[in-house]
Amino acid sequence: MKVRGWAAKEKGAQLEPLEYELEVSSPHEVLVAVEACGICHSDIHMIDNDWQMSTYPLVPGHEVVGRVVEKGAAVEGLEVGQRVGIGWQASACMTCPDCLSGNENLCDHHQGLIVTGKGGFASHVKVDGRFALPFPEKLPVEAGPLLCGGVTVYSALRHAGMSSGQRVGVIGLGGLGHLAVLFAARLGNEVTVFTTTPEKAKEAEKLGATRAFVVEPGQSPPAPPYRLNLLLSTVPYPQDWVAYLHWLDSDGTLVLVAGGPKPLEIPFWALLTKRRRIMGSPIGGRAILKETLELAARLGITPKVEVFPMASVNQALEHVRQNRVRYRAVLRNA
Amino acid sequence: MKVRGWAAKEKGAQLEPLEYELEVSSPHEVLVAVEACGICHSDIHMIDNDWQMSTYPLVPGHEVVGRVVEKGAAVEGLEVGQRVGIGWQASACMTCPDCLSGNENLCDHHQGLIVTGKGGFASHVKVDGRFALPFPEKLPVEAGPLLCGGVTVYSALRHAGMSSGQRVGVIGLGGLGHLAVLFAARLGNEVTVFTTTPEKAKEAEKLGATRAFVVEPGQSPPAPPYRLNLLLSTVPYPQDWVAYLHWLDSDGTLVLVAGGPKPLEIPFWALLTKRRRIMGSPIGGRAILKETLELAARLGITPKVEVFPMASVNQALEHVRQNRVRYRAVLRNA
Repeated sequence: MKVRGWAAKEKGAQLEPLEYELEVSSPHEVLVAVEACGICHSDIHMIDNDWQMSTYPLVPGHEVVGRVVEKGAAVEGLEVGQRVGIGWQASACMTCPDCLSGNENLCDHHQGLIVTGKGGFASHVKVDGRFALPFPEKLPVEAGPLLCGGVTVYSALRHAGMSSGQRVGVIGLGGLGHLAVLFAARLGNEVTVFTTTPEKAKEAEKLGATRAFVVEPGQSPPAPPYRLNLLLSTVPYPQDWVAYLHWLDSDGTLVLVAGGPKPLEIPFWALLTKRRRIMGSPIGGRAILKETLELAARLGITPKVEVFPMASVNQALEHVRQNRVRYRAVLRNA
Repeated sequence: MKVRGWAAKEKGAQLEPLEYELEVSSPHEVLVAVEACGICHSDIHMIDNDWQMSTYPLVPGHEVVGRVVEKGAAVEGLEVGQRVGIGWQASACMTCPDCLSGNENLCDHHQGLIVTGKGGFASHVKVDGRFALPFPEKLPVEAGPLLCGGVTVYSALRHAGMSSGQRVGVIGLGGLGHLAVLFAARLGNEVTVFTTTPEKAKEAEKLGATRAFVVEPGQSPPAPPYRLNLLLSTVPYPQDWVAYLHWLDSDGTLVLVAGGPKPLEIPFWALLTKRRRIMGSPIGGRAILKETLELAARLGITPKVEVFPMASVNQALEHVRQNRVRYRAVLRNA
């Protein structure tokens, strides 16, 4: 099938139309017609080759909502015409202990959709059908950000121990952060936001946060007037981690879903006191992705998005780069 | 009551005899005649004022096994003559959320026995009776190291998720490390030891370890031939934490019970990959201390100790300082 995509021809380039062929060529594959696709910061990191793993031409996009148009002989549980969602992950080995325990996201052989160069800013994508999950009909087609941003923060919070009645902090109020606030608040937690953007601090309450603090770039958060059980960081910039650790209560966890190349400097005493933890959490496996989607559908949790036509992809990317989007940009195919 | 103790009169000094009065003066207190007391590295840190919190004269000692000789009116569950064990902690506020949830060790107002200056290298000690736990009669009186070293590693491993059938690593094979090996192996885990001492690497198997690696001071551990679910560090010196994190499998935890002043430098990616965690864990609350003692009694887990008469305390301390003890020194009153 002839596919029309939007590709960066080289590092940091504007996207340009690109045509290429995609065929179902092995039994587990599905071909999906893209209806909408969110823009994640990882797309920009990949366009810019920040992680030294991009190949060009590169078609970004990995928060895909679309309909199955063709499927291989081994595909189970999906029908042609069915609406599915696809996130960061396009395949895994499916036989290692991680895959067998529902942690396909931790598989040493996992493949990212856009790492192959043919992502969701396109008319169609091809993935292993086991990574195209039924997308609840109750969710709008623009809710694709649940598929990467949503599951990333929900899985991180769950694996860090989120239940209900806790105090949850969120550093950064962007695509990921606003979804973390929505989930944590709706599930009965008291949410504190830390943001560099004064306007976002004012908006945080509308998302369900109880308090928001403005922390200027490069500055430290205030001394804690109360303590948090969980603190999620969604920002890739260095922070005053010691000051943030002091916000954590006993058995509290700082969970990072984003980070930069500079190592975190963590004093032993800040961990020992109150038995604190730091962890990283990458996207989510299929089980928790399914849980994220069904929970969002049941509770009516939908990403706050700005929708752009697919052909305006460069304008949309520029909005994201300029931190002007509230809170996620989504591209829509006609 | 006139008490005979062994005190450091100033930072780093040899211990000298010291007499002082101890009376039960409030309803929760108990006075305990010391039968035996382990020597923990924390005693040496306190003698040397490494933590800037020592007051002199300082009587070290906080792995006390002894018998109740006097008790206040509010003391419950203890009788005069009963054998009890006392660890690092002498009191806590007993009303904060930490205390109410059995994490008295995390209480902001917890008091260390030797921080008061009158520890267990003495004829008697005085503590809040709620921190004198019945010491199982099946355990030898020299098993005092369970009260600090034992509960510290057992609580750390449990809070880091130790169950059975896991791969557990232990960095450092001293007083704490050897107890970690004994507990983890006896509970059905495969144990890997990292030690700087070639002789200890040879001895590790006898304690229940499956493999031991010699890691020279300042060097990195070898590349992992297999991965660990848990890795406990019992050493206060900087390590190549990135290399050790690579030993951790999915959802694996590096848990630190000792550390120095130099911050750990942790790259975000080493945490994100495999969803790894780092935590600190200080001693243990009363519930897990009780569990540690009863488990040790039931399974016959006893510290490997070298016993010295109390009057030879300086000789015993010198052995500990020189890393000559296998694996814990215990002082015995006549």
